[in-house]
Amino acid sequence: MKARIFVTLKEGVLDPQGQAIEGALSALGFSGVGAVRQGKVFDVELEETGEPAEARLKAMCETLLANTVIEDYRIEMG
Amino acid sequence: MKARIFVTLKEGVLDPQGQAIEGALSALGFSGVGAVRQGKVFDVELEETGEPAEARLKAMCETLLANTVIEDYRIEMG
Repeated sequence: MKARIFVTLKEGVLDPQGQAIEGALSALGFSGVGAVRQGKVFDVELEETGEPAEARLKAMCETLLANTVIEDYRIEMG
Repeated sequence: MKARIFVTLKEGVLDPQGQAIEGALSALGFSGVGAVRQGKVFDVELEETGEPAEARLKAMCETLLANTVIEDYRIEMG
């Protein structure tokens, strides 16, 4: 089974990378661009499927893929 | 308008970051994990909407957000 995991900064957490991209876009002449936030995406292949797979993906996020103090994660099973 | 842009490595391009995560997951006791690939996600706010917005997002990807030699991008308008 293939799953996609999104890890994004929680709202209110400063995102210097996103701000740098915002600045670069405006320097390149792209006007009318509001906030830019950068996150990570992980494509994971698993042997399991269904609920056990989701539970394991959640455990992976909690222990390795996301820093839950400042990041949110979302799992999309494909 | 809010848009989400996914930037992922093209198939066949080596992903050392993904491989490191794969190794770390197996070291943490997560067995049965196949390939892991890491990508980036950008949440962009734009003043424009519809087709002009999509054209601008495409231009942003081509010039700044993605390295089209090794990366693919996908735009999702919200």
